[in-house]
Amino acid sequence: MSVATMASANDLRNLALETFKPLPSTVPAVKDNPITDAKIELGKALFFDPRMSASGVFSCNSCHNLATGGDDNLETSIGHGWQKGPRNAPTALNSVFNEAQFWDGRAADLAEQAKGPVQAGVEMANTPDNVIATLTSMPQYVDWFKAAFEGEADPVTFDNFAKAIEAFEATLITPAPFDAWLNGDDQAMSELQLAGLEKFIDLGCASCHSGVNVGGHGYYPFGLIEKPGADVLPEGDKGRFAVTETVDDEYVFRASPLRNIALTAPYFHSGKVWDLKVAVEIMAESQLGEEIDGETADQLVAFLDSLTGALPTVTYPVLPAETAATPRPTGEVVPN
Amino acid sequence: MSVATMASANDLRNLALETFKPLPSTVPAVKDNPITDAKIELGKALFFDPRMSASGVFSCNSCHNLATGGDDNLETSIGHGWQKGPRNAPTALNSVFNEAQFWDGRAADLAEQAKGPVQAGVEMANTPDNVIATLTSMPQYVDWFKAAFEGEADPVTFDNFAKAIEAFEATLITPAPFDAWLNGDDQAMSELQLAGLEKFIDLGCASCHSGVNVGGHGYYPFGLIEKPGADVLPEGDKGRFAVTETVDDEYVFRASPLRNIALTAPYFHSGKVWDLKVAVEIMAESQLGEEIDGETADQLVAFLDSLTGALPTVTYPVLPAETAATPRPTGEVVPN
Repeated sequence: MSVATMASANDLRNLALETFKPLPSTVPAVKDNPITDAKIELGKALFFDPRMSASGVFSCNSCHNLATGGDDNLETSIGHGWQKGPRNAPTALNSVFNEAQFWDGRAADLAEQAKGPVQAGVEMANTPDNVIATLTSMPQYVDWFKAAFEGEADPVTFDNFAKAIEAFEATLITPAPFDAWLNGDDQAMSELQLAGLEKFIDLGCASCHSGVNVGGHGYYPFGLIEKPGADVLPEGDKGRFAVTETVDDEYVFRASPLRNIALTAPYFHSGKVWDLKVAVEIMAESQLGEEIDGETADQLVAFLDSLTGALPTVTYPVLPAETAATPRPTGEVVPN
Repeated sequence: MSVATMASANDLRNLALETFKPLPSTVPAVKDNPITDAKIELGKALFFDPRMSASGVFSCNSCHNLATGGDDNLETSIGHGWQKGPRNAPTALNSVFNEAQFWDGRAADLAEQAKGPVQAGVEMANTPDNVIATLTSMPQYVDWFKAAFEGEADPVTFDNFAKAIEAFEATLITPAPFDAWLNGDDQAMSELQLAGLEKFIDLGCASCHSGVNVGGHGYYPFGLIEKPGADVLPEGDKGRFAVTETVDDEYVFRASPLRNIALTAPYFHSGKVWDLKVAVEIMAESQLGEEIDGETADQLVAFLDSLTGALPTVTYPVLPAETAATPRPTGEVVPN
């Protein structure tokens, strides 16, 4: 590499470091939830346990599948009674670094988020009481809660259930070539990927998709410049408006975190776009008012590929066996 | 331990070894399917991949969940379109040692078995063509098939898909306290468990539930002496009759393999009995004409507990990402 190229690589890196941050090498601290090995292990068991759903069919991992990029690769998830969820399932990977959770940021953190799908009628259709009855019926789970929440008189609670899942999810960090490059390894990204990174910054993508998760913070109208078609942006889903009830928040969503985006098609909250290049083109037009050419789109996709990271090794858990006291699963669909 | 007790322990062990066999310490050879590491790894990926189902919701592991005893702990499985399967899902653990697969033994081996649920309309509702189209759309899968079936001109076939799953399942062997005891460790089983083993042999349970899997071979009428009620033995399911069309095979089923039975409630092909002690009492009455007392039932259950084994460590796989060519999932229910 010539001195000039090295200098320009370093310029780009310095520019990038003003906007992005590499993933840390350690599990981040989480507010009000000290992370311990016991809590991580308990959270992993809960994350993979289908008995946390009313039917016994769905676990957290069903829709946030760690084998397939931390999501389910469906338009919108299929849940209890074969009902379809309203929005595309976001990845659980690196989600600890998001400012808030869900497409509309309605949960402040992963512990709050974890309580949602368990109770949603179209997802796991369970109740906190039934979750706790299920957990307390299995002595091994009670022991695990005691170890994870040492010193608490009544450790098996719905709050602690959520905290344990948050602790496990905090470990789902996926260092990628982009991190290696940010950390100084010039060889970690290809020329095409670096060209894509330059475009990503120059065009303005990085104004919203920034920080450690290349997004995951800040709220913006989908269709800032030009509204996408109703197939991609269905009229009925007004985004953050449902949270804030402020007219300004109509069709506003949290800027998507882009780590592992190449693994998590289909795209957008509607899950209507399967091709990452098409998604990039729609974004350029709707958010930046730019009609980008094919070469630019390819460069941007190449950059996004450099955000595909490696998951830490997850040993599949062996879960406690039910007892006579364990509530029985039911696939019955109870109308609201 | 006195010399007399030791002698009696050895007598019981010698008696048991005439009927049972401890699990081997190595993965067993499988007919026409040499087991290699590459094939095991491919099979693991396929076993956990929900994209093997039409909907993208169900993997083999959904109903044969390695976290919960290799089954789904449901009466009968819930599958495509929220349809209920006709029979309780049997465990995948140690299934390589069964003489034949399914409750009625209609599949000669695990490779043949693996082709069933993928195509069953109420389970994964997929077609061999769509499975192959899905697999060939992902270059990483094609490479894995090439490595697992070296030298084959066209390695990505439905037959090889099934063989790879069989290879992975052949590794799902769970050595239990009973094996340690059969292998000579007097301390591995409790007095109660040993008393249960004696009763298991004396009463005649072991006439059908024998061999390495304590069952899993031989076909017997359910209700040999006295038919259980229609709740447990529904009239509409005539068992092996559907396979052989021989009147003698009405309500005939393969003797259930009993390893890990304590983890795999509910019981029987109908999945109607949740309590292992009740299941034992029903068996004693229907197959042996014995009304056993509570103490005997407890001893038998204790023996069955000694068949709960340890699964080898399974690292959760990271699966290849879809491409533009990957067939899209569909949850649509197509009538037969």
